[in-house]
Amino acid sequence: MDKNDFQRDFDRLFDPRSIAFVGASNLPGKWGYVMPLSVIGGGYTGKLAMINPRESSVMGFPTYRSLLDVKHPVDLIVVTIPASGVLGVMRDAAAIGARNAVVVSSDFSEVGEEGAALERELAAFANEASITIMGPNTMGMYSSSSSLTALGAPVTPTPGQVGFVSQSGNLGVQLLAWGKRRGIGFSRFVGCGNAANTDITDYLEYLGKDPLTGVIALYLEGLKEGRRFLETARGISRNKPIVVLKGGRGAQGSKAAQSHSGAMAGELKLFEGMFEQAGVVEAESSEEFIDLVAAFDAVPRARGKRIAIMTMGGGWGVVAADSCDREGLELAELPATVIEELDGLLPRFWSRGNPVDLVGNLNRSNLFRTAEVLAACDEVDILVVMGALLSRQFFLKSLPLSVLRPFYNMIRYNIGKLPMYLITQYKGLGKAFMKTPGRSGSGSTGASGSSGSSGINPREVLKWTDAALISRMAAMVREYSKPIITVAMDQKEMSGAAKLQEHGIFVAHTPERAIKAAGKLARHGIFANRST
Amino acid sequence: MDKNDFQRDFDRLFDPRSIAFVGASNLPGKWGYVMPLSVIGGGYTGKLAMINPRESSVMGFPTYRSLLDVKHPVDLIVVTIPASGVLGVMRDAAAIGARNAVVVSSDFSEVGEEGAALERELAAFANEASITIMGPNTMGMYSSSSSLTALGAPVTPTPGQVGFVSQSGNLGVQLLAWGKRRGIGFSRFVGCGNAANTDITDYLEYLGKDPLTGVIALYLEGLKEGRRFLETARGISRNKPIVVLKGGRGAQGSKAAQSHSGAMAGELKLFEGMFEQAGVVEAESSEEFIDLVAAFDAVPRARGKRIAIMTMGGGWGVVAADSCDREGLELAELPATVIEELDGLLPRFWSRGNPVDLVGNLNRSNLFRTAEVLAACDEVDILVVMGALLSRQFFLKSLPLSVLRPFYNMIRYNIGKLPMYLITQYKGLGKAFMKTPGRSGSGSTGASGSSGSSGINPREVLKWTDAALISRMAAMVREYSKPIITVAMDQKEMSGAAKLQEHGIFVAHTPERAIKAAGKLARHGIFANRST
Repeated sequence: MDKNDFQRDFDRLFDPRSIAFVGASNLPGKWGYVMPLSVIGGGYTGKLAMINPRESSVMGFPTYRSLLDVKHPVDLIVVTIPASGVLGVMRDAAAIGARNAVVVSSDFSEVGEEGAALERELAAFANEASITIMGPNTMGMYSSSSSLTALGAPVTPTPGQVGFVSQSGNLGVQLLAWGKRRGIGFSRFVGCGNAANTDITDYLEYLGKDPLTGVIALYLEGLKEGRRFLETARGISRNKPIVVLKGGRGAQGSKAAQSHSGAMAGELKLFEGMFEQAGVVEAESSEEFIDLVAAFDAVPRARGKRIAIMTMGGGWGVVAADSCDREGLELAELPATVIEELDGLLPRFWSRGNPVDLVGNLNRSNLFRTAEVLAACDEVDILVVMGALLSRQFFLKSLPLSVLRPFYNMIRYNIGKLPMYLITQYKGLGKAFMKTPGRSGSGSTGASGSSGSSGINPREVLKWTDAALISRMAAMVREYSKPIITVAMDQKEMSGAAKLQEHGIFVAHTPERAIKAAGKLARHGIFANRST
Repeated sequence: MDKNDFQRDFDRLFDPRSIAFVGASNLPGKWGYVMPLSVIGGGYTGKLAMINPRESSVMGFPTYRSLLDVKHPVDLIVVTIPASGVLGVMRDAAAIGARNAVVVSSDFSEVGEEGAALERELAAFANEASITIMGPNTMGMYSSSSSLTALGAPVTPTPGQVGFVSQSGNLGVQLLAWGKRRGIGFSRFVGCGNAANTDITDYLEYLGKDPLTGVIALYLEGLKEGRRFLETARGISRNKPIVVLKGGRGAQGSKAAQSHSGAMAGELKLFEGMFEQAGVVEAESSEEFIDLVAAFDAVPRARGKRIAIMTMGGGWGVVAADSCDREGLELAELPATVIEELDGLLPRFWSRGNPVDLVGNLNRSNLFRTAEVLAACDEVDILVVMGALLSRQFFLKSLPLSVLRPFYNMIRYNIGKLPMYLITQYKGLGKAFMKTPGRSGSGSTGASGSSGSSGINPREVLKWTDAALISRMAAMVREYSKPIITVAMDQKEMSGAAKLQEHGIFVAHTPERAIKAAGKLARHGIFANRST
């Protein structure tokens, strides 16, 4: 589409010195209210101009009757008036030299031929005037460098390195919010809307060069220029991983996509071949999309597909190994020297193979030593640590329930035995505290020789605060520069999870999701290493 | 294995009048401490006997030197002493007429030939003495009817109708905890351990007849008697759905399973054929396992595979339709009468097809009317409602952030405009409250005609408390007796989610997971309807 091929001013789109809101309103819930409030709330510090001919002020700012009345230069306009008036606004924008417009207004090509004609007219004029239109029918945008949050939903992304372009607004902002909860930071967000004269590939090209963007995330339904997308993506994906969620895959999905964005979703096989060629990582679901974005955002590049897995129970090891089969990962063969080293750290009957089953061992210091032995091993490209790295907070949080419930029920059903119960509990805790930190399972503490049953060591447990755990993990990432993935199925399980994301460790919610992400990290690593 | 075929006393296993702990201990963290504490904490009201020759009391209870010294009848013994002593304990158990033993002790067949020999000896004796052994190497059990929690982890399941048998202890108790967080109630839990003389099929048979159990969940690695499992499962699954997570699927997974439970995992194809024949629903991951258990626990049986989807944004509709393609579901054709009815409820440019795109409509009353129209439609077997049923709490929880942040930034960057800002905000809110509840998108409220942009109606929003929302949903389930699935991606999004589970509505965490569960519900419904 050569007609869209004008010189764009994306720098001013993502870093505008001033913004004008056409259709600004004081009525809560209206787009003309939501957008300026979002910008003010996000902490944007540039100039704001409110355009509304029927109000004297909007949100405390005096209004202008029209764009033409604004005397300072306007870099970006945000349009929320009805469709029929948008072309006129573009004429005014051209007259005052504004080069970028976020057009939130809907009722264009998404609602039928009449709207489509209007949209074509709009695009033609904007191309002529060299105006980049984001939309129409967009949910807005975000740009970290200007603290610019112009979003149709109450989301304020955390600044970071992920650039996200979405061909669906509602899905896009929901994934933004979800990503924020997972600890993902964003550099830019773009809701393409109907993409009147600015395609997903235009934004992709910009993000490829954008120094603030290190990982690119795309929700993609259809492409107008497949070849250009392929070439652009291939040029970028070696250095900046591109993660894509493809909507409109099957027959029913394509039909839904057609009625949604008006775009033909195209042949799935064609897309998959293109992603493969371009080194684009495809997610199979919205959940995997967020997982992969978090993973690529956090971890260093994988050198290969050999994986080591630490597990607290055989069943999880089995399930994780199954996932390795599915994802094309190889369980690393641990060299004899590594097995020997682990013999010194783990209970007598540990699995002596990979997955490394810790047999319920609860000595955190040894768990960390085990993790380090595996991370240091040259045969291991990726390390997955399952449910082993519980911090002090986990124990403290579960303590009241484990202690109070028995106490309460002793009162209810065995009140006569309560005094002796309290005495023995007190003495038992004392004994536990007297133990010197050391190997678990050494059998030195009592009658039972069951593996991992020699009791917990409270002193050892209390040593591992969230901060200690995070700094130790972060040091491992720095030293070995390999993907390290932890698994926390319960939020209580790792209170520092969101912080680990910042420190280069990906926290997955289930073992299978950890392995799934590992598989994609490996494939991208192999692609990128081959290409460079 | 005919030798295991003695008359069992499962009723006393799950409802023991008394329990003896062999190896009871006062040292925190030891199995001999954890198990009686778990039982006391769970609120079990039967008699407890502590066996420990070296302590005078454990947890306030006077100890016995041996089982032989206990004078009252013992229905269940819990054994935590080292492996070498367990056979002797069984002899004592036989002598006093105890018929059930939970053997937590490890170092049996899972650690090599020596342990395996010991385990065979144990099994032979137990068979002779008609003692059911759960274990050895088990993490314990749970039974709702006796408030009996004998688990090696601080989990107290909520009573309910799900019977869960696991061939992995650690995985089992973690899934129990996860299930509890999702609002799933359990009738029984069994950690099989090494299954010396009691197989997963024995428990399955019992749960099939158990009046407290309505849904059966299995984590399965291997089977000793495939044919018996198949026939038992087929006899049950019509009336009680059986959900299975199969560990040891691929080459690496099978190898891990072998070193874990010692059992050969067997051919995957064989298992899949068996599940298919028996109407057993297979989950592809631990996450889907919990989803499916929650779904079958909550919703009525599906009549077929025709699905209707309500969505707040086109993108989510596309993604959901894609999932329908994958899961073999058909998007129901909505009859003209239904389309007409919806025309009266939804904004002008709604999709007029399935998925039903609500185009950002925020009028909750109309959303409920839309859901009811779809649930009432004979062409619809399953209804999925995505991100539309937000209660008052959602708005109240996001309010402070949406209000305080702009206020804070007005002070920082536009303090001069603050008074007027406050005045216009106040006036705007007043206007919003004056609106009469009605159709959204009618264009009566201002300049912008963008769909869904006519502002929210606070009065309408505040009407929908969690309680109102739940009672309305529950009424729909009662009236139409169809699976209704809602999607809540954010915990904030549906504060009443765990309660919805109790009221017969399955709450999924993503659209894809909702559709995946719907696919399995449809397949089981079709199987069960054909078989009866």
